[in-house]
Parts: sequence; structure tokens; C-alpha cells
Amino acid sequence: MVPLQATTTKHTTSSGQDSTGRSPSLRETRARLGLHPKAPINEDEAAEPRNTGLAWGRIRIALREPFSEFWGVVIMILFGNGSVAQVLLSMGEKTAPGGAGYGAYQSVSWGWGLGVMLGIYVAGDSGAYLNPAITFSNCLYRQLPWRRFPLYFCAQILGGFVGSGIVYANYINAINHFEGRGIRTVPPSPTATAGIFCTYPAAFMTKASMFFSEFIASTILMFVIFALKDQGNLGSAKNDRWFPLSLFFLIFGLGACFGWETGYAINIARDFGPRLMSYALGYGPEVWSAGGYYFWIPMVAPFCGCIFGGFLYDVFIYTGPSPVNSPWLGLKIFLRPDYAWKVRKQRTIREVEEGAV
Amino acid sequence: MVPLQATTTKHTTSSGQDSTGRSPSLRETRARLGLHPKAPINEDEAAEPRNTGLAWGRIRIALREPFSEFWGVVIMILFGNGSVAQVLLSMGEKTAPGGAGYGAYQSVSWGWGLGVMLGIYVAGDSGAYLNPAITFSNCLYRQLPWRRFPLYFCAQILGGFVGSGIVYANYINAINHFEGRGIRTVPPSPTATAGIFCTYPAAFMTKASMFFSEFIASTILMFVIFALKDQGNLGSAKNDRWFPLSLFFLIFGLGACFGWETGYAINIARDFGPRLMSYALGYGPEVWSAGGYYFWIPMVAPFCGCIFGGFLYDVFIYTGPSPVNSPWLGLKIFLRPDYAWKVRKQRTIREVEEGAV
Amino acid sequence: MVPLQATTTKHTTSSGQDSTGRSPSLRETRARLGLHPKAPINEDEAAEPRNTGLAWGRIRIALREPFSEFWGVVIMILFGNGSVAQVLLSMGEKTAPGGAGYGAYQSVSWGWGLGVMLGIYVAGDSGAYLNPAITFSNCLYRQLPWRRFPLYFCAQILGGFVGSGIVYANYINAINHFEGRGIRTVPPSPTATAGIFCTYPAAFMTKASMFFSEFIASTILMFVIFALKDQGNLGSAKNDRWFPLSLFFLIFGLGACFGWETGYAINIARDFGPRLMSYALGYGPEVWSAGGYYFWIPMVAPFCGCIFGGFLYDVFIYTGPSPVNSPWLGLKIFLRPDYAWKVRKQRTIREVEEGAV
Amino acid sequence: MVPLQATTTKHTTSSGQDSTGRSPSLRETRARLGLHPKAPINEDEAAEPRNTGLAWGRIRIALREPFSEFWGVVIMILFGNGSVAQVLLSMGEKTAPGGAGYGAYQSVSWGWGLGVMLGIYVAGDSGAYLNPAITFSNCLYRQLPWRRFPLYFCAQILGGFVGSGIVYANYINAINHFEGRGIRTVPPSPTATAGIFCTYPAAFMTKASMFFSEFIASTILMFVIFALKDQGNLGSAKNDRWFPLSLFFLIFGLGACFGWETGYAINIARDFGPRLMSYALGYGPEVWSAGGYYFWIPMVAPFCGCIFGGFLYDVFIYTGPSPVNSPWLGLKIFLRPDYAWKVRKQRTIREVEEGAV
Repeated sequence: MVPLQATTTKHTTSSGQDSTGRSPSLRETRARLGLHPKAPINEDEAAEPRNTGLAWGRIRIALREPFSEFWGVVIMILFGNGSVAQVLLSMGEKTAPGGAGYGAYQSVSWGWGLGVMLGIYVAGDSGAYLNPAITFSNCLYRQLPWRRFPLYFCAQILGGFVGSGIVYANYINAINHFEGRGIRTVPPSPTATAGIFCTYPAAFMTKASMFFSEFIASTILMFVIFALKDQGNLGSAKNDRWFPLSLFFLIFGLGACFGWETGYAINIARDFGPRLMSYALGYGPEVWSAGGYYFWIPMVAPFCGCIFGGFLYDVFIYTGPSPVNSPWLGLKIFLRPDYAWKVRKQRTIREVEEGAV
Repeated sequence: MVPLQATTTKHTTSSGQDSTGRSPSLRETRARLGLHPKAPINEDEAAEPRNTGLAWGRIRIALREPFSEFWGVVIMILFGNGSVAQVLLSMGEKTAPGGAGYGAYQSVSWGWGLGVMLGIYVAGDSGAYLNPAITFSNCLYRQLPWRRFPLYFCAQILGGFVGSGIVYANYINAINHFEGRGIRTVPPSPTATAGIFCTYPAAFMTKASMFFSEFIASTILMFVIFALKDQGNLGSAKNDRWFPLSLFFLIFGLGACFGWETGYAINIARDFGPRLMSYALGYGPEVWSAGGYYFWIPMVAPFCGCIFGGFLYDVFIYTGPSPVNSPWLGLKIFLRPDYAWKVRKQRTIREVEEGAV
Repeated sequence: MVPLQATTTKHTTSSGQDSTGRSPSLRETRARLGLHPKAPINEDEAAEPRNTGLAWGRIRIALREPFSEFWGVVIMILFGNGSVAQVLLSMGEKTAPGGAGYGAYQSVSWGWGLGVMLGIYVAGDSGAYLNPAITFSNCLYRQLPWRRFPLYFCAQILGGFVGSGIVYANYINAINHFEGRGIRTVPPSPTATAGIFCTYPAAFMTKASMFFSEFIASTILMFVIFALKDQGNLGSAKNDRWFPLSLFFLIFGLGACFGWETGYAINIARDFGPRLMSYALGYGPEVWSAGGYYFWIPMVAPFCGCIFGGFLYDVFIYTGPSPVNSPWLGLKIFLRPDYAWKVRKQRTIREVEEGAV
Repeated sequence: MVPLQATTTKHTTSSGQDSTGRSPSLRETRARLGLHPKAPINEDEAAEPRNTGLAWGRIRIALREPFSEFWGVVIMILFGNGSVAQVLLSMGEKTAPGGAGYGAYQSVSWGWGLGVMLGIYVAGDSGAYLNPAITFSNCLYRQLPWRRFPLYFCAQILGGFVGSGIVYANYINAINHFEGRGIRTVPPSPTATAGIFCTYPAAFMTKASMFFSEFIASTILMFVIFALKDQGNLGSAKNDRWFPLSLFFLIFGLGACFGWETGYAINIARDFGPRLMSYALGYGPEVWSAGGYYFWIPMVAPFCGCIFGGFLYDVFIYTGPSPVNSPWLGLKIFLRPDYAWKVRKQRTIREVEEGAV
């Protein structure tokens, strides 16, 4: 959620054919992918010979932000899914120090909380959204360009897919030990291990309650994140280190306070990516049908919740530029073409001046 | 507890008919509500066209601080009540990772601790008291204007009411599952769920002990908060980010060390608001009569405790301006009208100069 | 452990009959008590009329540092003893959220850890040693004047005494409920509650092991604190806010890793003060005789351990001025009177210049 | 992991025969040991008379960095092994507050997490790698001179050896109480206590899985550490205090999420040093043969994992100077002697100019 301006302002002094927008072809590639022509690279720290002569050097600059999102989500999933795996599979393990398994439910809150925290540290350069719904809200309310959304979305889903695969590889023996070799089941099976990867709702929940539970958790998530990033509030400075720590507490809290009924997916990348992986690993079609085809709720509800949470924050507290603070909720842009043209022109001028989105 | 000066100093450069005290009518409205004529908005970050032409734009500026307090308390209650709900209702749930429910008592300490922390981040602009007793102490010892107290008080109570309603909506199926559909009971019933919302004392407590327990916890709360905000001590800079983190530890500690006997309400907004909600939701008149009409203790004791805690801090450690450091404990103002007039005049001059309370 | 220089440098600009060393009599009183003539008060934040005309105003300035130490220890003990009380007395309480009592052993680590952290915030101005053994080591290795030791010592012990009394007052009903009215027992009684207040060793420990356990924990305590305060290492800046947080982790760690065998007293103020209180409250002479008259070990071992820990740090890592870095371990001062005279004279000059220590 | 440049830049102003590279012989000794001729000592804080006349004063300057690494690892092991010892040996202890032993599995996560954090505070000056595999990766990717590796390696292993010996000395009675006097067993014995010192794999693990588990944890470790130290990312400033705190969360997470199957050694110094100690203490040859001669895996896998993790980070995210960012992965230096000579010459010039590394 670190706005890209923070990093891109660093190279506004460099002009024209500078090293981040190295060659016209590279700039074009990035523009075609929906990214800003100049990659957000801190010039002060960058190595002297950038080696854009190397093919890989060009690729990694062209895809800098998606790579960051990808790795951020991988780290988040490694710790998050890893914590569930360890607690679930080692249940009742007598040989553990303490004699009661390697961790209790609170380990899961820790795992997801610090997974998000460390994921943000890793993905810092890209914006570190780690969640398509949060990316979406930032496009909607915080002027993140819409054209970035598809690439970020893919990178985040892919991160969830790959991260959960690594967790499976690590815990494959333990899963065999727990379920039996070749047996892979989905809740409510008593030895189900599918819950390691993605979320399944508690048995007593109704569809409406499932949706509401995901919705309210996502609303809180977005509302608090916007407060934490709000420079006009107590909020954090750009690129500062309090943000990841605060996110640890926020995610820990969602796990400890709203984590039971539906498993607090609040993130399509955290739920759909690993669900796909578990399907690929042979957990069967039940990964989709379980809980009355529950799988679509953690895909849709986080978007609704994050949009609503962002709306609430902007309506009541935010004083910066937001569509919510604009006349007609910013819809004037759709209704009056001349006004839209004026706004777009101003934005282009600003972008050119700042050398950044 | 972030003093308003911190935020209001930001717009002292703007003079006369500036954008925060936009129009005479808005200034009058704010003054009539007991707030400072100018809303504490960070001009640097604010959107260019403030849209005071919109009705909502005027309302939110008029009620800026109460809105902040309201949302801060809502967030606090969501995490606090939510953590109790999850731990209480999922007790013994075999399907949880670890097989022993979704959290233990310590989850509750986490929930309230980080709820307060995140609530302060959200409510930063308003002062982030989140507790009428703390607002009261700040009026008494730290020159927060008394006329603000009623509006803050209402906003905080309403926040508690609304926040606990959202938690109920989220956990309604789980409560039905735990108590049975339509059954709602209050401790000492073995399946009581009223403890999710507000506090009930342990069975063995006497009235005096209940009062003392709430009193001592509130005393510690205020004493430590004044230490944390004391610029002359190790204390924190204005608007800094250490304060919310320290509050996490303070509230966690009160939960882990003084949280059993009476449930550490230490806040009328945290206890009375949700209690009213639980009454409205059908928990019956027992929410008032339980524990020998215990309900008035978390209403009164926090005020007594916070006043005493603030008194102790100012008597022994504080070196800044406080009635306790004044001759006759600042009572001279009541006894010598000429002196009172002089003090009031000086304060008005200072307010005008600073453009702030 | 915040060196007094940090606070006293703030008023070096004020000269002569300034407001902190207000009147000759006040300066004399402070000097006679072993404190620096000028009280460490941050002038920028101090109230305009200091009211040294009030008797209490004079007393609190005369005893500023001891008061700070006293309240710091009180806060530490409230959380520390409070956490033990809550966990011990609520053991197996079915009505707790989670159904297994109000906290587990880890609550105790949290309680002492955050108790020390918040105690340091409260006592910041005085140096925040909160532990006579640490004060002693600072006199020995860090030029804290020896004449301060007695008054700090008394304030710290008194803080332990008073703090544990408040905890008893808060938990008196719960203790009656647990042990039975009027019954107060000491380990190894199965319902012993004396362990709330001070430490008792595990049954299988030998005397030498008890001493070693306290010794090694105190050594670690001092070694790490010196590292945390070392400006030449990664160490913290003066008066900074990382120190209390780091102490939380250090004390938490001692509780989690070296807290079982003897209860990690590592502080005579934390052990002897509450032990005296528990004796006064009627726990009987067993508070002294339990564990083979164990009570002297947490009085003596922390001093030995802290001296050794400080010695290790200064021998291997510290590069600032320390007797350990001086020729003959600084003993030259005792053996060559002319050298001693020279050192003392230089120190006096420095003190006068700095207006401190 | 604090780069030495950070500390050494402090004395670049001092020239020639300065106090850190005091005498030609001292400089030679340090150079012969593979260290930079000038010891990284913060001159501003250093004592006036450096007493290089004392033999010990010369030794500790000559061996400054190895001493720091040694003590950092000792502190890490004291808390880490100590936490395992306390939880394992006090299992089911009824007299503990809470009645269920002195800590649960999560204590172990806390112990290692804060052990690493405090170890970094202690060892700050040396670089605070505390792990030969991390030192190795820094040599490979971050221009730490290779000639330092052997001495750091020895210091780290020795730290593990000594630290675990102190833990044994502290818990000897408790081990006798748990296993029986003179009996020392290794998992899978039901009363095994060898797990206090070094790691043993879970029974169901295959060799490949053991290796993979250690490998993936080490990969994560290095990947995240490089992110945390990356100035071009959200990364931390040099010598800053966020790094140790972040490491707490990282190590805690590895313990909570990847700590079960092989005990997350991820560090030869943490595993081999204590293993040697436990062998010396009489745990028998089973410390080597257990788990199918598992002992070599935590010696080799961390190196492989850290190299791979560093490679991944540099390939995808790092923009500073790294062999991975160089043409031919920096191998040109081996293939073209003239190029190698040029690079070496430039480096020497830079070293002389910076007075460092």
C-alpha cells in the first residue's frame, strides 16, 4: 500500500533517456503492460552498470512491480499456510516441547500477521497491496491507475498458487502421516487437511452469514489501512516502517477476532490461488463444492467489503482527494464529457511533471 | 489522547476566512456544538476543492472530532468484543487448528490491546480518547475545553453501541449454535453469551471489591497514559506513533493482570454502550440486574479511577501546567473572581494567537 | 537506565539561581540526600509559575528521582504480581472465555515484560533502573554517583512493598476463594498463594543451582542492558523509545527461558519488597524459611550477576569509559592518592561545566 | 547483518596512526586474522585513554568482530535453548501458574525470536550475522570480504558451544529430575532431553524431506533478510533499530510455521555447536546417529538455502551491486584475468578511500 509516488519521486531529477526508463523499447513494453514507463528503482542504491544489455535485466525492469507483488504474496502465503499446516498436522503431538502439539490456534494469527508484515517488506517497491481487493480500492479511491490492476491481479493470484505449492511440498510427509498416503480430504472430514490451503466455513453458517463475515472483515481491513496510510490523520509517512508493524496487529486482530466462522480469507489471492493449487494436488472437486459452493464468497466479498470500507473512511474521515469528496461522488466525470476531458488533461500534466503516475 | 494543538497548529498560517473555518455559519455551528470554530484538518494533505458546497461536506467538517471518536470506539469494540465472541463461542471446537477452539483467554488481551491501538490510529485527529473518563481527566488536568465533553461522550457511547451491534450481527449464527436459537442468557448461566458485549463480575466478588478492581485498573490506565504523553518525561512527541503501540501493551497488560475479577471495563463507552445493545437484542433485564445491579460500577469507577490516576501523576511526576501544580489546586479560580477573569482572558488571547483551543 | 545527563543537559543554559535549583535551601536538601543539586526537570515543558512557595512543590523537587523510581517499581510490580495472581487464582475457571482460566503461564511473561516497559516510561526522568542491582552496576561501571544509591535503593524497595500491597488488595476476595478465608500458605502447599508476591524455588533445586540460576539470569540482564544502552554499538540514543520496548523482549525472554527454576527474581526490589508485604499480610514466617531460607538468594545473586554481566560487557565489547578499560581495572585510584586527587578534580570540573551529575 | 561500512565510516576523518588502527603491529595482527586493519570502534563514544598499552586492550581490538559474533550467538543460544529446556522439562508441572507447565510450544518461538533480536543488539558492531550461512551469503552477494569468513565461522560455532553449555549448567537439576540422575537420552526416547540443545527430525520424515524443510526455511530466512537490509526497497537504514525487531518476527514465524518437522535449525552455529556440547556432556553417540545420521543436514542445508534465497532476491528484486546483476553472473572475473585484475584494483582503491572493508 506504499504509493508508488514515494519511490518514483526519487528519480524525477533524471531526465529524458535515464536509466530507469532505459530504452524506448523498455518504456514501451512497460506502458503496454499497464505500468508506468519508468520503473520505480532507487537510483542512489542501484548498481552502476545496470546491464540492460542482459535479456533478464530488461525483463525484470519491465515487470518490476508484478514481481514484487508476486514475491510479497509468496512470503505471506508461506507463513500463513505454513502456520495452519504446522498447528493442524502436529495436533496432539506428544513429542513437542510442552507435549501438546507444535502450536495452538494463536500460532495461526501470528503466522498470517507476520506473513503480511514480511510480505510488505519484500514487496515494498510495488506498492505492497498483496490483495486484489485492496489494489482495487486504491484504484477507486487513491488514483492508482486502473490499467495496473490486471497485471497486479495476476501476479497476486500466481503468488498464492506458488506459495501454497511450496507449503505442500514442505509438509507432504506430515500430510501423509496425518491423512494417510494418497488420501486428501476436505472439511467436514475429520482428518481434512484442505483447510491448510484455503478457507472453509463453519458448519452452522448460513450463506448470508458467510458473506457478511467476509464482508465485515474486509471492511475493517480497508478502513484501518486507509487510516494507517492517511497523512492527514495520525497516519504514517510514506515508505515508513510503522506500516508493516501496524499491519501485523491488524491481521493478527482479524484472525483472533473474526477468524473463526469463515477463516478470514479477505483476499482472493490468499484463497483462490491456494484453492486452485489444492485442486491441482488432488483434493478433488470438493474444494469447490464444500460449504455449498462456498468458494465464490472469498472471491467476491473482499471486493465488496474493501470498497465499502474505503467508502466509509473517505466519507467520514479522509480529507485528501477522493471521489467521495468530489461533487456527485466524482461521477461528474462520466456525465459531463468536457469536464472529464479537463480532468484528464490536468492529470496528464501532473504525471509528466512528477515523472510518475 | 493526542492533544488537538498538534493538529491545529498546522493551519495557523491560514488567516481569516480560511478553508477549515470555511464559512461563518460553519464556524458558528461548530462553536455551538462545543468544538473549536476551526476544524482540525491538515491543509497540506487536504483535497484542493473542499466542496463545502455539499451539505455532507459541511456536516462532516462540523462534526469532525465526534466522528473520529465514534469510529475509533467502533474499531476498538469490533476487535474487543469480537475476540471475546470468538474465544467464548468456539470453546472446545474440535475442528479448529490445534483442536481446542479458536483462541484462548490471551486472545482477549490481544483483541482489546490491538483494538485500542488501531482505534487510536483511526481516531487520531480527534484526540483519540475513546473513553469518556479519559476525556474527563484531560478536561480536568490538561486544559481540554469542558464544552467538548458532552459531544465526545455521546460519540463514544454511540460507538460502543454500534460496534457491539456489528459484532452481534457477525456472530448471530454462532450464538444461536452455542445457546440455542432465540435463547440469550446472562452470567452465571452456563451458556451465557452476554459476556461477549459487556462485563460481568466473578461470582465471589463483593461490591467493594468490584468497585476497587475497576478503580485500580482505571487509575493505572490514566497514570500510565499521562506518563506516555508527558513531554517532560521519557514521553512521546506529539502525534507520534509510539503512543498507539504503548497503549497496546498497556491494555494487554490490564487484561492479563487485572482482567479477571470484573472484566476490566475501565470505560463507560466500552461497557454501557454494548450493554444497552445487548438489552436491545433481547438479553433481558438481567443485563442490568446481574451481579447485584453491577452495571453502574463500570460507569462510575472509571471516572473515579482516572481522576485519581491523573492526580497521582500530576502530584508526583508531572511538571507541566496542571491544576495540581497550581496554588490551592487551581481552586483559586473559583474563589477569587478577579483572578478567574484574568486567567480566562489570558486563555482567550492564547487561543486566538494559536488559532486553536 | 536512562543516564541523567540526558535530562540535565536540558537546563545547562539556565544559570545561577535558576528554577530547578530554585533556592539555596532546596539545593542543599537535594545535595544532602545524595542527589545532584539541580533537579532534572525539562524546563521547556514545565509550568510557568513553579510554585516552590508550596511546601509540596519543594518536597517533590527535592525527591524527584526517588519518586520516579518508586512509581516505576510500583507499576512494574502491579503488572508483574498482578499477572501471577490472575493466572494462579483463576486456574481451571470454567467461566473464562476458552474455559481454561484467565491466562496461562505465558501471561506471566507478558505481565513482567510489559510491567518493566511501562515502569520505565513512568520513571524515565530518574534513570529508570527499577532494580538496585542495576543501579549498583551503573555506579560501578557508568559513573552514576555512589551517593545516590541509598535513596534509590529505598525508593525501589518501597515501590515493591507498596505495589504488592495494592495487588493483594485487588485480589483479596479471589485469594479467599482460592485458599479459604484467613488461610494463607506458602509453597509447596498445594493451594499456596505466596508465589503471587515473591519467588520460591522449584522443589528439586539445590542451593548452588538456585544461586546459579539467579546469577546467570542477572548476568544476561545486565549484559544485554549495557548493549542496549551502548552508543558505540547498535545501541539506542539517549532517552529514546526503543529501550523500553527492547526491555519488554528481554524480560519476556528471561521469563520464558529462565523463569521456572527460581522464578527469575533478578531484582531485590521485586522480591524482598513483596516478600516483606506478604509477611506483613499474614503468610507467616514460612515466607522466609521456605526453600531452605531461600529468601537471601534473590537478594544477593542479582548483585553478583549484574556486576559480572557488566564486567563481561565492558571487557569484551564496551569501548566507552569504564573502570574495566582503565589500567589496573581503575584500582589505581585507590593505590595512588595523587592520581585519585587528579581524577576527582577533573570530574568536579566536568560536573560544574555540564551542570550535571 | 549490519554492514561494517556503517560503523567504519565513523572514523574516516581520523588519519594515519589513529587510535583504532593504533599501532603497526595491531594493524598487522588484524590483517593476518582476515579482518580490516582498523577495528570498527565508534570514536565519539570511546574512552579517552584507549590503553592499548594493556595486553588485553590490544587483544580485544584485534579480535573485536569475532568477539561480537561470539557473544551475539551466546545470547541467542541462551534464550533459544533456554526456552526449549524450560518448556520441555516443566511439562505438566502442576505448581506452575495455570497448572500446565512453564510455557507451551509458542514459548520456543518467542525464545528463538527474541534471542536473535537481542543477539543482534549485542553483536551489532561485528555485522551481527550470527549464522555462518548468512555470513557466507553476504560474502557471495554483498561484498563482505571472504577472508573474514573463517574467523567469524569459528566464533559463531564456539558461541553455540559455550551458550548451550551455560544452559545445561542452569538446567542440570531439572534434567536430572526429568530423565533421572546420569541418564541422558536422545529422541525418540520418551524422556529425551537432547532436543534442548540441537534439532532432531520428526519420525515420519524422509531424508529428502528433511533436507527440503531446512532448505526452504533457510531460503526464506535469507530472502527476507536481504529485503529487510535493502536500501532500495522499503528496507531499513544502516544500523537502524527496526532490523532486530523485524528479525524477531521473522524467526518467530519460522518457528511457528516451519518449526516442526526438523526443528528449524537453519544455522550450523545453532545446531552443530550445541550438538557437540551435548556429545561432550554425555548424551552418547546417538546425537550423531539419530534420525539416520541427520546431523549433517542442518550443517549443509542452511548454506544451500541461504545461497538460493539470496540468489532469488538478487535476481528478482535487488537493484544494488550483486554478482547476479553482473554480466555472466560475475563469473567474468574468473574467466578473464585482465578484468579480474581491474576489478580488484578498483576495490582496493575504494577500500583505501573509505578506510573500510
